[in-house]
Amino acid sequence: MVSFHAFRLLMTPDRRHQVRAESCPTESWSAQDRRCWQRRTAAVTAAAADGVDVDALAAAVTRQGATVRQMKKDGVTGDELVAAVAKLTEAKAALAQAQAQAAPTDTFDRKAFEDTVVRRMFVVPSFEIHGGVAGLFDLGPPACGLKANIVDTWRKHFVLAENMLEMECTNLTPHAVLKTSGHVDKFTDLMVKDVATGEPFRADKLLEDHIDALLEANPAMPREEAEEHRRVQRQADAYAPDELGAILRKYGIKSALGNDLSEPFPFNLMFKTTIGPEGTSVGYLRPETAQGLFVNFRRLLEYNSGRVPFAAAQIGLGFRNEIAPRNGLLRVREFTMAEIEHFVHPKHKEHPNFPDVADKVLTLFGREDQLGSGRTQNITIGDAVRAGLVNNETLGYFMARTQLFLEKIGMDPLRMRFRQHLATEMAHYAADCWDMEIKTSFGWVECVGHADRACYDLQVHAEKTKVAMVAARMTEPHMETFYKFNGDKKRMGTTFKANQKAVMAALDALADDHPALEAFEAKLDTDGSAELAGFTVDRAMIAWKKTEKMVQEEKFTPSVIEPSFGIGRVLYSLLEHSFYTREGDEQRGVFRFNAAVAPIKCAIFPLSANDAFNPLCSEVAKLLGAVDVATRTDASGVSLGRRYARADEIGVPFAVTVDFQSVEDNTVTLRERDSMAQIRLAVAALPDLLVSLVFRRAAWQQATERFPVVRSEDEEGDGSAAPAAVANGAPTKVERSAGAAFSRPATAIDTSTLRFP
Amino acid sequence: MVSFHAFRLLMTPDRRHQVRAESCPTESWSAQDRRCWQRRTAAVTAAAADGVDVDALAAAVTRQGATVRQMKKDGVTGDELVAAVAKLTEAKAALAQAQAQAAPTDTFDRKAFEDTVVRRMFVVPSFEIHGGVAGLFDLGPPACGLKANIVDTWRKHFVLAENMLEMECTNLTPHAVLKTSGHVDKFTDLMVKDVATGEPFRADKLLEDHIDALLEANPAMPREEAEEHRRVQRQADAYAPDELGAILRKYGIKSALGNDLSEPFPFNLMFKTTIGPEGTSVGYLRPETAQGLFVNFRRLLEYNSGRVPFAAAQIGLGFRNEIAPRNGLLRVREFTMAEIEHFVHPKHKEHPNFPDVADKVLTLFGREDQLGSGRTQNITIGDAVRAGLVNNETLGYFMARTQLFLEKIGMDPLRMRFRQHLATEMAHYAADCWDMEIKTSFGWVECVGHADRACYDLQVHAEKTKVAMVAARMTEPHMETFYKFNGDKKRMGTTFKANQKAVMAALDALADDHPALEAFEAKLDTDGSAELAGFTVDRAMIAWKKTEKMVQEEKFTPSVIEPSFGIGRVLYSLLEHSFYTREGDEQRGVFRFNAAVAPIKCAIFPLSANDAFNPLCSEVAKLLGAVDVATRTDASGVSLGRRYARADEIGVPFAVTVDFQSVEDNTVTLRERDSMAQIRLAVAALPDLLVSLVFRRAAWQQATERFPVVRSEDEEGDGSAAPAAVANGAPTKVERSAGAAFSRPATAIDTSTLRFP
Repeated sequence: MVSFHAFRLLMTPDRRHQVRAESCPTESWSAQDRRCWQRRTAAVTAAAADGVDVDALAAAVTRQGATVRQMKKDGVTGDELVAAVAKLTEAKAALAQAQAQAAPTDTFDRKAFEDTVVRRMFVVPSFEIHGGVAGLFDLGPPACGLKANIVDTWRKHFVLAENMLEMECTNLTPHAVLKTSGHVDKFTDLMVKDVATGEPFRADKLLEDHIDALLEANPAMPREEAEEHRRVQRQADAYAPDELGAILRKYGIKSALGNDLSEPFPFNLMFKTTIGPEGTSVGYLRPETAQGLFVNFRRLLEYNSGRVPFAAAQIGLGFRNEIAPRNGLLRVREFTMAEIEHFVHPKHKEHPNFPDVADKVLTLFGREDQLGSGRTQNITIGDAVRAGLVNNETLGYFMARTQLFLEKIGMDPLRMRFRQHLATEMAHYAADCWDMEIKTSFGWVECVGHADRACYDLQVHAEKTKVAMVAARMTEPHMETFYKFNGDKKRMGTTFKANQKAVMAALDALADDHPALEAFEAKLDTDGSAELAGFTVDRAMIAWKKTEKMVQEEKFTPSVIEPSFGIGRVLYSLLEHSFYTREGDEQRGVFRFNAAVAPIKCAIFPLSANDAFNPLCSEVAKLLGAVDVATRTDASGVSLGRRYARADEIGVPFAVTVDFQSVEDNTVTLRERDSMAQIRLAVAALPDLLVSLVFRRAAWQQATERFPVVRSEDEEGDGSAAPAAVANGAPTKVERSAGAAFSRPATAIDTSTLRFP
Repeated sequence: MVSFHAFRLLMTPDRRHQVRAESCPTESWSAQDRRCWQRRTAAVTAAAADGVDVDALAAAVTRQGATVRQMKKDGVTGDELVAAVAKLTEAKAALAQAQAQAAPTDTFDRKAFEDTVVRRMFVVPSFEIHGGVAGLFDLGPPACGLKANIVDTWRKHFVLAENMLEMECTNLTPHAVLKTSGHVDKFTDLMVKDVATGEPFRADKLLEDHIDALLEANPAMPREEAEEHRRVQRQADAYAPDELGAILRKYGIKSALGNDLSEPFPFNLMFKTTIGPEGTSVGYLRPETAQGLFVNFRRLLEYNSGRVPFAAAQIGLGFRNEIAPRNGLLRVREFTMAEIEHFVHPKHKEHPNFPDVADKVLTLFGREDQLGSGRTQNITIGDAVRAGLVNNETLGYFMARTQLFLEKIGMDPLRMRFRQHLATEMAHYAADCWDMEIKTSFGWVECVGHADRACYDLQVHAEKTKVAMVAARMTEPHMETFYKFNGDKKRMGTTFKANQKAVMAALDALADDHPALEAFEAKLDTDGSAELAGFTVDRAMIAWKKTEKMVQEEKFTPSVIEPSFGIGRVLYSLLEHSFYTREGDEQRGVFRFNAAVAPIKCAIFPLSANDAFNPLCSEVAKLLGAVDVATRTDASGVSLGRRYARADEIGVPFAVTVDFQSVEDNTVTLRERDSMAQIRLAVAALPDLLVSLVFRRAAWQQATERFPVVRSEDEEGDGSAAPAAVANGAPTKVERSAGAAFSRPATAIDTSTLRFP
């Protein structure tokens, strides 16, 4: 996630909140967290709300408010004023309604979600019995299995499918590496301390919370005044230390205990330790995995037989010592990332496989739309690159691949968009950046960065270590023109003195950039002087020696295009997108994980605790285990309906039930989670069918067409099934034995002869 | 790996070297490292050498040496003495020869191995271009893929097949947790510092190296004297600080610069950091993953519906701030572990699936054999448990499962054994411990610990946090007898004074242990007094109040049985066991990874750089990708033979070659790595065949029986194949085009109709 941080190092950091943290589901969403996220994302959320132009409604309110104020000023009274005020009230109500409709929390039962996530141990506060640690969470069994499958899918979708070079580098990182990358100096948040107690606070958060409280306490505050406070609030994390200090003083903000605060000062967010016994070798826990790949560039290039382009990838941990992680899951101190560094010729960013994805439609929220219409557009990535909206094919290729990956693991495409970084957000060297944002009940969350970082990363390490970080490529033998400065150095020395070195460096750089050189020369010829790197040079100083050489090899520092995944955020978003409650029963939570990522693929239930079912249950588990279909047998004494519900809660897509008929004829029922439909088939046919459903993404529909459908009408009860017409026409009779009933076709079906494609 | 460390905390730590580190392949094996390992493992290695009784030969040398010395002492001279000396010389030669044969380095080409491992980027020193950091290594692409597959196999073999509850806990761990576990106080090595420069050294290593040098410099040293030095050396890491200080002084050991050394003092091996901005919350990087599972016991139990036994598992990192990691790969500072904590009733350690493994033959090196014969025994785990050699079924079950796992990933069964911990190695609370040791060119390396840790871990956390860590089980309602001390406390007070509390505690413990209580009472009745916890109590003091109660539920603190895998060491051992060079060509290294763990399953080669081959190559890649078979296409211009060799070097088991015939008839050749045999088959038949070979572990033999075999005679050359008889009888004709030749059956074969099982 170098993009996240490196951008912050060198830019106006006005989106730092979204880039800073990592998601991890938690049981406690503080009201403060919710407010924080809603506030940050309100404008954007509203703008992009489904079809309703919230911005237009807001503008109408603003206009009508102005009208009313003007009328009052002009002394208008009576019916005319009353009508205008009524119109304003109406406009405000329309806006409020639209905003409420746009708020994603309304379509999502967070209470049921949180209850299920906590109760079924998707997530636990780390070291809970010892009092816990803010910002640290453990993944319990269902989330752990889900994450393993997401990571596995990622590895197949990116590393294996694209022949990427995967590495595993260490988390412990020595000072020199992170000093070079800029993290030691710039990877900071502004902190203030209670001068009496020393208690630390994140300065921007204090300001934001203070303004929230101020506005809540003064609902009658004039709109313009409130808007001014909001403007300050929105920029809270963009101020320089002294600016922010002045603002905190202006607002009279104190510590939680009411004491004075220190001046804001930068606090480095890396966890520091010492490596080795001397206590002198400072090291850090890496804030991103990318640096490990950059420092290995030379060896990776060699592994790839010297050829560029190629991509390296790494899945691993990152760490951030947050000042105030609060309880939310979107800012944690330890998180999993998956990063790709695609090395490519800086002037040839075409991608050979781009045609494969060119027709993929993405939802793009470009720079101009963010500043203008406030609306996203749906456009093929091919058109977006052609139009220059997305800088180049390789960047566009990865955006499309990310979209496909997220769809593959089951993310809702309607709640995904790519937001382009504003010019002020990007590092000076970066060519273009697009964040995949996923809509959750907390608003739009940045989950995957896509950055064209140019040559920056390789260059800083090369400069520091004096190790060449270049690739070469053969070209057709051709004549090439070279320029070398050949002007009046003495005159330059007299003019620029100590700055001569800087001017010379600028001239050397100019020598390699022929179009710029020509423009510069033209200007010198016309005006007699020209600006260069902040200095004015004149015609008399400048001359060039021009040579022509036969060239067969070109050396270059590759550009880096970096897709960077916050796996924890992806995991959390997927949990939200997958959750629903059974219609008419909010107590029954279900995760609709697709079979490929579901932690358990198939539950196995004996109809009751009767020992007669055990051998067949074991056989089913064994058969499915042999084809790598993960199963879990629940032989607890509770009703079948209760066990179905339990399996639903952790998103198990299929369930096999072994009943009395099974013991007789080796057939079982197979139930699909979302439709709750059941089919009956021979045990021997299960492996092929489940391999198709789980690994080959066959549709359940196909299974119901091949095998007889049986239906259980009361999943809530004891698992007994009322008679039901079999969907494909075969009649069903009902048997009842040992207190449990099940349906089956009246005529025996030789399921062993049915084959699933 | 709690076993490794917790054992150290509470025991005579005479095997600390083997338990302390983690393996990771490296390019540089220092001579020192090699010596260290050979020394540590020499006795054991020699004893277990294949069939040759090295110990007996050594004993013969000792006896003959004694005879010669006695003869000299007795004044014997002349022929008689000469003959005795000759016999001694002969015995020494026989011993030397046996030892040389037993040394595993002789059957393993380490130079070729290291060359391949480094050249093909299995491993890289971390942050190499910035000067590197001792004890940190990165895994490059082939090792990274291999490790991912080992971990995936582990997850399927243990977590999924056994319904374990997998968790992912954080690496950052607060002080309180590791203080409770004992790591803050006891997870140390002894360190000395150069008093002049402050340079730190690991004290035991200094002593060991000094004795090595001493013995090398004095080859004529009398055997007994040398043996005494060796004895000191073997115990180097078992001395208390003051003992070790005295020994360092006795040997006159100085620092590397010749300066005096400080007294040895304990150095904690955990990486320390602070969590949060206050700088006061001390945290550490976890030294093992186990603690995360222990502190979550309550929630895991609830997740498992309150039922015991169950197992929790975790795969993740561990960290050790080694004082002197040297360059070796067996002591690194950051490593991957996979740990299982199986919670079970302390008095019911039967395992329901034990019958499944009872007949598995394991090589056991029991406590008595280590002290006696020096020989291992091959015995079924069923017999071992029945005989009481292995303490209980659950421990035995996991030992067998570990053996099966290691065999599954391709470890050589002849180079695996289980070594039981000596009584002095075990923690006082532990019931039994067996280490899976794997033989490498460095000797026997402990790779997996299997420990029955009784209730220790849950108890310490429960005590500290006051959170109950107990499970309950229903029992048939039954009467149970309870005893309560009811004797003469006054008399005890007079007798034991300050010790009364200790005696009372011992009596309370006795009250719960009915057989011990009965024996104690019998002794009191017979002798009038008895020993208890080191005190003598007499008949007149002791009486009990006996009650009977109806009991339906039993509460208990579960015992923990812990298999703990050092994944890095497993990975390294597998690399060694898998490596060989082609007969007659030491330049051609091959890794014989089985298809299931190989990082790339199938290489795809166009016969030449001719563009005509590309579409079919892409199609093959796509077809195989769709069934999750990882491929890598090598379309570089070098010869086919060279590309086969390259694929061999990273252990790719299969290679598809697309040639001119392919373009005509959609058939390709498939080459198997170890036999170098090739078959020809339709492209459409590839997915099924490779799924069988890779995921279903079908034998290559089956493939050669189903499809026509073609043979390339010169893999070293340009990939041209001489005419060869097709194994299954079909004649072969040779075509030669574009400078490359290949064999194919003379008659067209409709391969599309051939199906692989």
